[in-house]
Amino acid sequence: MRIFSTSVFPRRQQQQIFNLRQFQTTTILRNPISIAPIQIPMDAEQSLRQSLSEKSSSVEAQGNAVRALKASRAAKPEIDAAIEQLNRLKLEKSAVEKELQSIISSSGNGSLNREAFRKAVVNTLERRLFYIPSFKIYSGVAGLFDYGPPGCAIKSNVLSFWRQHFILEENMLEVDCPCVTPEVVLKASGHVDKFTDLMVKDEKTGTCYRADHLLKDYCTEKLEKDLTISAEKAAELKDVLAVMEDFSPEQLGAKIKEYGITAPDTKNPLSDPYPFNLMFQTSIGPSGLIPGYMRPETAQGIFVNFKDLYYYNGKKLPFAAAQIGQAFRNEISPRQGLLRVREFTLAEIEHFVDPENKSHPKFSDVAKLEFLMFPREEQMSGQSAKKLCLGEAVSKGTVNNETLGYFIGRVYLFLTRLGIDKERLRFRQHLANEMAHYAADCWDAEIESSYGWIECVGIADRSAYDLRAHSDKSGVPLVAEEKFAEPKEVEKLVITPVKKELGLAFKGNQKNVVESLEAMNEEEAMEMKASLESKGEVEFYVCTLNKTVSIKKNMVSISKEKKKEHQRVFTPSVIEPSFGIGRIIYCLYEHCFSTRPSKAGDEQLNLFRFPPLVAPIKCTVFPLVQNQQFEEAAKVISKELASVGISHKIDITGTSIGKRYARTDELGVPFAITVDSDASVTIRERDSKDQVRVSLKEAASVVSSVSEGKMTWQDVWASFPHHSSAAADE
Amino acid sequence: MRIFSTSVFPRRQQQQIFNLRQFQTTTILRNPISIAPIQIPMDAEQSLRQSLSEKSSSVEAQGNAVRALKASRAAKPEIDAAIEQLNRLKLEKSAVEKELQSIISSSGNGSLNREAFRKAVVNTLERRLFYIPSFKIYSGVAGLFDYGPPGCAIKSNVLSFWRQHFILEENMLEVDCPCVTPEVVLKASGHVDKFTDLMVKDEKTGTCYRADHLLKDYCTEKLEKDLTISAEKAAELKDVLAVMEDFSPEQLGAKIKEYGITAPDTKNPLSDPYPFNLMFQTSIGPSGLIPGYMRPETAQGIFVNFKDLYYYNGKKLPFAAAQIGQAFRNEISPRQGLLRVREFTLAEIEHFVDPENKSHPKFSDVAKLEFLMFPREEQMSGQSAKKLCLGEAVSKGTVNNETLGYFIGRVYLFLTRLGIDKERLRFRQHLANEMAHYAADCWDAEIESSYGWIECVGIADRSAYDLRAHSDKSGVPLVAEEKFAEPKEVEKLVITPVKKELGLAFKGNQKNVVESLEAMNEEEAMEMKASLESKGEVEFYVCTLNKTVSIKKNMVSISKEKKKEHQRVFTPSVIEPSFGIGRIIYCLYEHCFSTRPSKAGDEQLNLFRFPPLVAPIKCTVFPLVQNQQFEEAAKVISKELASVGISHKIDITGTSIGKRYARTDELGVPFAITVDSDASVTIRERDSKDQVRVSLKEAASVVSSVSEGKMTWQDVWASFPHHSSAAADE
Repeated sequence: MRIFSTSVFPRRQQQQIFNLRQFQTTTILRNPISIAPIQIPMDAEQSLRQSLSEKSSSVEAQGNAVRALKASRAAKPEIDAAIEQLNRLKLEKSAVEKELQSIISSSGNGSLNREAFRKAVVNTLERRLFYIPSFKIYSGVAGLFDYGPPGCAIKSNVLSFWRQHFILEENMLEVDCPCVTPEVVLKASGHVDKFTDLMVKDEKTGTCYRADHLLKDYCTEKLEKDLTISAEKAAELKDVLAVMEDFSPEQLGAKIKEYGITAPDTKNPLSDPYPFNLMFQTSIGPSGLIPGYMRPETAQGIFVNFKDLYYYNGKKLPFAAAQIGQAFRNEISPRQGLLRVREFTLAEIEHFVDPENKSHPKFSDVAKLEFLMFPREEQMSGQSAKKLCLGEAVSKGTVNNETLGYFIGRVYLFLTRLGIDKERLRFRQHLANEMAHYAADCWDAEIESSYGWIECVGIADRSAYDLRAHSDKSGVPLVAEEKFAEPKEVEKLVITPVKKELGLAFKGNQKNVVESLEAMNEEEAMEMKASLESKGEVEFYVCTLNKTVSIKKNMVSISKEKKKEHQRVFTPSVIEPSFGIGRIIYCLYEHCFSTRPSKAGDEQLNLFRFPPLVAPIKCTVFPLVQNQQFEEAAKVISKELASVGISHKIDITGTSIGKRYARTDELGVPFAITVDSDASVTIRERDSKDQVRVSLKEAASVVSSVSEGKMTWQDVWASFPHHSSAAADE
Repeated sequence: MRIFSTSVFPRRQQQQIFNLRQFQTTTILRNPISIAPIQIPMDAEQSLRQSLSEKSSSVEAQGNAVRALKASRAAKPEIDAAIEQLNRLKLEKSAVEKELQSIISSSGNGSLNREAFRKAVVNTLERRLFYIPSFKIYSGVAGLFDYGPPGCAIKSNVLSFWRQHFILEENMLEVDCPCVTPEVVLKASGHVDKFTDLMVKDEKTGTCYRADHLLKDYCTEKLEKDLTISAEKAAELKDVLAVMEDFSPEQLGAKIKEYGITAPDTKNPLSDPYPFNLMFQTSIGPSGLIPGYMRPETAQGIFVNFKDLYYYNGKKLPFAAAQIGQAFRNEISPRQGLLRVREFTLAEIEHFVDPENKSHPKFSDVAKLEFLMFPREEQMSGQSAKKLCLGEAVSKGTVNNETLGYFIGRVYLFLTRLGIDKERLRFRQHLANEMAHYAADCWDAEIESSYGWIECVGIADRSAYDLRAHSDKSGVPLVAEEKFAEPKEVEKLVITPVKKELGLAFKGNQKNVVESLEAMNEEEAMEMKASLESKGEVEFYVCTLNKTVSIKKNMVSISKEKKKEHQRVFTPSVIEPSFGIGRIIYCLYEHCFSTRPSKAGDEQLNLFRFPPLVAPIKCTVFPLVQNQQFEEAAKVISKELASVGISHKIDITGTSIGKRYARTDELGVPFAITVDSDASVTIRERDSKDQVRVSLKEAASVVSSVSEGKMTWQDVWASFPHHSSAAADE
């Protein structure tokens, strides 16, 4: 991971998803994971490589000298002196080698630690069925995972909280559209033509690889394992890594050829790279004539319903629509476990707003928040993310507008309340050339994990692009109206091509010229008017003909007319927060995972410190010993918990209470009720291991209150007698 | 709809989904809608048709007689008498015609009323965005619908309650598996080979039709509109309608040819019927070599995870796993609006249980319930559904076992709590030949709607079929173990083929013979042993060779040995309640829809009487007049409602309060808070239109309590001063 030095970091962010960016900033789950800039001074490594290469030459030269002396039967002292010099040079070379190796592997060690940590988390997650590789008994399918019981409960809790935090509190209009989508919709959105990754094939076996992965792996391995490459070569490889995501298919193919990269499994030659569309294709209906795809995002379902939703909202702006649902991307070769998958849950919001007024009435609610932000400037100048006050970021123009800022604040609150560590959460602004041309501003909520900084939420001001695309394709105007209190007098540009003259002059090309004239904006038109009036003739570029024609004064009339208007009709801008639910949950696992020694100190026990809000099970109920009376009491508590909707589990196995605590700690269960009498119980909190005594009758309601956030554990601790855990437990 | 007389009803239920039933009882959303038996005496119609045909002959004969008399210039009185007789006969014929027409259309009128009712419901649903035809601006796609904001909220409420009622209260293990499924899984389940409907194609245009639909439409139209067909013909058509679902492709094709049925749109000839697989096909990964499908049900995701889930549950039976998710069926030509769609949400439970003990510890909780059941016997003997006590139905063996009975009871409670009318809900048992051969018993929860009785939940005891199918295909044993308290002595059959002798006798076929010998069951083996001992030789059919071979005494040894066993290993039975969420919601719409006159009495106003549990919005907040003070108060209430998770809507439009009530009644909002002072408000209940006065401070908590079922409206009515609605409202 050390291969990205600070200076190349900004470039690395460019065009991360190839040509996809050109039409779309809904990039959630599309971006390669961006890497935190690691501060190894580029010069140190470069100069060591340089020095190593010089030392190697010296050793070789001195070796030759020694051999020459021996061949010429030189005097022994002379030979000995030369050998001594050779050994000294070898030692020097070896020292440089060691130093270089240590610099390379210093960040390597970091990544080793991260990998060990990840392995511990993933091992626990799989063993406790937080997730299961799908269709495991049939050896599974890459990039498809099931949520097992605790994972499923967490997902359900995250989505419930999302609904509460966004849909309910912001009065959004939730919709639920099918995954199967006809081609015409995804043609309009641009996905059919441009939602691609570059692929190469093993020319003999046909096995497919992502072209950029192969090139990246080659460069990384060369840099990490081959100490003999020159400083120049190393610099070149680093540069390739930094810019490869801007490569055209041809450039990528040329590099693969130049480096002699072959198929990893067979060493066979590879095809040229070509684009592979990432949508799962299918066919709707029995005829085979209606092509369809599994949607790659949920947003399009909202855009196509804009008109109905706008009417439903009483023709008032702004309003937001939201959708939670499955999305599908047929990755060429999924890597990175739960972070890059072929089917995943997205939660997307499309907030429609008047482009002339992007203020937000509730912005003051979030203006005082302070958190890590990583604006464009800081990235370009090699700085790192820094704590900013959101209100200032908006007022200074770092964040484009209040509505965008409001959602950044709401996303920050959402993620941190789930249990994301706020020190490992940053909002990174897209660089200018990273955004689509139509986008006004974009910020990604990135969460740091063992894989680096992961884009988990994208928050983009996409202007009017999506609604316009569907208006154009469908012919249904997706617009909003602003009625004026009083009619307004406006000046309107009127361009009237004189078709007769144009027809005489351009014959079959007349239509193209007419359209180009009509498409001029105000500035262009007024410039033409002035030129025609002064010179009588003007050169005019017709893009659909790709040539310049000569327009004469009699061919077009251009004027400004005053008109009374009663309303303004416009295409709303859309501000889109888009949440990769699976990625958020994975990062949450890493942030909540921890270990602590067992009571005997002989082993490390795992625990997930999930907040009660997301914990898969809120409470376990243990009879202290197997005993009918305690079991009956446990059942009564269980029934009460179920009736108030608190997920829980009874554990009546006879294992020691300490083992049972360890077992539930590993599932992240925040509270445990131990039944050791028929009058009262102990309630134990997971993180502190503190215990209180509560009457049997109150037990369920105390756990329910503290699980639902109506009271804190501190409140409980202050209200009930404490229980010494020395006797019975851990 | 009148075409199904009582006597044919039971046969109509058979094999409703063609060969599908042979392998699968998970029929939710697959069944054509079953029709309530309508009690028109078959004889009356038949004898009228008979009589009409006789009258027609008489009229014709008499007409001929009159013409003959005229031709033979008979005497005028004779001719007049014959004409009088002719007129009498014509009158008689016309009377019979009228009577027949009235019998046919009496149920026809019923269906007209039902259609008018449905139109009113559907019109309201579409206008208020409960649902939206998907991709409407691109003219939509048959069988795909969006849930708009109120529909989406209802769906979310139904699923939340499902989770509470089943997963939480029964401690089920919820999983969440991908929709994209590799072929091998659906090959094992039988879907790849057998999940088909029969299709015919217009031979010229290629347009596809469901073969059974065309035949059904032909018969129905003939019976309803053509009075001239003979009683025999009418009986034949009815018989076809009753049995057509058992037709083979050949039989169906023959009938289509015999009746001269052509393509409805073009009148072109049709192809022979052939099976069309209803799964959406796709390809996983970039190679195009891994075929996959969009899952047609969610159950398979649970079955393939059985082993992990069993371990997760501490290797204890019984336990249930559950899944909520999208399922996909590429219907040939979707009809019946929201009831037969190409993508829908299923909620499925797989309850795994020891086949030797299907009792249920909580059965007593539901044993006293009484509701409409429609056992096999009652269907076969032409009776209708009747109220039964669930406990008795199980103890008498009408319902196969307690666990199946328990789920029937829980489903009844679930549906009626949602707001399904218990008088229009019945549990219909599958007929013996309607079930798969392996199924022990199946009951469908059917809800009556304007389309007839709709299968909304299927509750099936599927025995060990699914786990065995996946064990066989994957080679991973999906079994459970029962450890014995003490080892048990059991007699085990031991078959030892003598390979040397078999090799000499059968050479290359030896392996097939060995396998066939080893595959014998106990009865077959003991029979062979006896024959070999008496005759020394026996004829033996080897199915993999498809021939009979001669087995001699020295070729195999068969014995019974006593062994001590420490545990029993077995494949669990699975009891599967499977819920079509969209169908339940549609029926709920119909059951809750109602109209009442406006206050002025000049129009009928729509309302949905949704229980608060499912209502899309629990409360609207109206300032009585546009006024800053009232609007501020409304915002305070709104904030309080949001913080306790009560979905609501502020309506600050200046329209009359009556209109605003009407608007929210049509969305099924149960409560409205009208702010008409800054100290207190009125709360109005939708169904009774009763209003109470509550202080501003208490308003949100009162609405929250009554919405969440913590108190009833009766409680509210008893606790607060009543408000006379005469002044301000409706």
